[in-house]
Amino acid sequence: MTVAVLSGLVRPLVEGRLPPEIEPRWFTSVEHLLELAPQAEIGWFDLDKKEPMIEAVRAAGKLKWLNSIYAGLDFLPLDLLVERQVTVTNGAGINALTIAEYVVMLMLVHAKGYREVVRAQDRHAWLGDSPGKMELAGSRALLLGMGAIGKLVKTRLEAFDVEVVPVRRSPSEGALGPDEWRARLGEFDWVILAVPATPETDAMIGAAELAAMKAGAVLVNIARGAVVDQDALVSALEAKSIGGALLDVTTPEPLPPEHPLWDLENAQVTMHLSGRAQAKMFVRSAERFVENCRRYVAGEALAPIFDPVKGY
Amino acid sequence: MTVAVLSGLVRPLVEGRLPPEIEPRWFTSVEHLLELAPQAEIGWFDLDKKEPMIEAVRAAGKLKWLNSIYAGLDFLPLDLLVERQVTVTNGAGINALTIAEYVVMLMLVHAKGYREVVRAQDRHAWLGDSPGKMELAGSRALLLGMGAIGKLVKTRLEAFDVEVVPVRRSPSEGALGPDEWRARLGEFDWVILAVPATPETDAMIGAAELAAMKAGAVLVNIARGAVVDQDALVSALEAKSIGGALLDVTTPEPLPPEHPLWDLENAQVTMHLSGRAQAKMFVRSAERFVENCRRYVAGEALAPIFDPVKGY
Repeated sequence: MTVAVLSGLVRPLVEGRLPPEIEPRWFTSVEHLLELAPQAEIGWFDLDKKEPMIEAVRAAGKLKWLNSIYAGLDFLPLDLLVERQVTVTNGAGINALTIAEYVVMLMLVHAKGYREVVRAQDRHAWLGDSPGKMELAGSRALLLGMGAIGKLVKTRLEAFDVEVVPVRRSPSEGALGPDEWRARLGEFDWVILAVPATPETDAMIGAAELAAMKAGAVLVNIARGAVVDQDALVSALEAKSIGGALLDVTTPEPLPPEHPLWDLENAQVTMHLSGRAQAKMFVRSAERFVENCRRYVAGEALAPIFDPVKGY
Repeated sequence: MTVAVLSGLVRPLVEGRLPPEIEPRWFTSVEHLLELAPQAEIGWFDLDKKEPMIEAVRAAGKLKWLNSIYAGLDFLPLDLLVERQVTVTNGAGINALTIAEYVVMLMLVHAKGYREVVRAQDRHAWLGDSPGKMELAGSRALLLGMGAIGKLVKTRLEAFDVEVVPVRRSPSEGALGPDEWRARLGEFDWVILAVPATPETDAMIGAAELAAMKAGAVLVNIARGAVVDQDALVSALEAKSIGGALLDVTTPEPLPPEHPLWDLENAQVTMHLSGRAQAKMFVRSAERFVENCRRYVAGEALAPIFDPVKGY
């Protein structure tokens, strides 16, 4: 019998649908999880907080397969997972659709100055002209990261007649290489960050990159706060040397109430909500998990795999 | 010599580019326009207010061609234009691109509850969950009006995996006929009004149509306020029998500060700004006008034509 230690939150979506070889044990609190973790061959340890998830992974000495609804699992004890040869499946792509929709929304809201319209409605004021006058059509976007999110962003923006230029490791038509995009930053109206969080992408946008962007260009970050040098970004936004920043992610999260980003009229702070703007996250994740359980028992490959060596 | 009486606002974009047969006379005030109008064979009488435009048309006894940046010209003395056999060119399509972008933005803002996020940023509050959890993907939209705007809305929504069903006069694959759509209203998540303002479309959405919409469905009006029975709409929104209304147009405009629509959390009031959210409106209109002047002198057909008999 294979013991699976699973969050009680997914019980209504998973119970009764697992292969008979798998015996689910549902945890309903952090303490309960830490008690059950050592029994787990399969674990789905997701919690709101990272620390007890890390603790549970450390306690799970028999773990062979760890599943999570989250895409970014770089906060876990990766060395330990490598050492114990744990297979890790993550939530890559689960949120991609709703994040891609969110990105286009933020770009449109910026282009049309729509936050000013929202505030005007709140005070019953009829505006005589649009606070924003940009069109997406005819603009150019540099897209860093062509994973599940990046691909969906690309097709949506292209329908708006945005020219989307991705950055790719291997040379391909209409794309820029990892060593090429910095020199071309000044050609884009939008710079969209959809890269995984790795040491390589840490602070990949700093003062030099921001200075190279064209006046009026907008940085969109749906990756991780750490991908951007946030102090340099605040300076650029204060100086209005770029047009704006659309930030689903920040450093830290939550952003403290006194942080200067909140009050910058050219910054949208969206509180890591982009992936949560959907009702299907748990359903999608449960569907995947049930299918992966079938594969696990049959000895087939699980998907999608998070590689603790690469960190994504 | 053909006298053209033109708004001084377009002078920087038009002057020096007209055929030598056309003599432009630029007006700089309402009084100036009314003084010059009787001389006009060609007129571009656009003003912020409708009344003096109507007066200028009445005064223009020699008018053969009237141009406007506006798409909806049903407020003009149409009988008089028909009687005097005036050719009318309008702004159809000039604003279509930016209106189409605006429509998708409003739908996304509704889906993600983004106005709540804007207000949260304003008060430096980090939200723990998304106020809206709808996805555009997988939803279905009924599209009334397949003019320039409707076509652009359709392609953009389809990129978001929205199934868009247009209403068409002539039967065609995937479309509903003018007598079919009412019976099918309950099948759609979005009902988008992009019809011209004509007696036929006046109050086409009333209490019965709103009652037939499914709970949670959203009405989008980028046509004219008069296309919707606004009192019935307010009742439906107050009762939450539909999910919301995204209203670029209202009755009247501006909407008075005490009107109930302003405070309805499920209504977005966007003050007829959708077409103004662009910097290219005058440039696009001037380009068209210059080209039409060339055609006028050459005896070729002008475009796009507004038909004062049909009213669009």
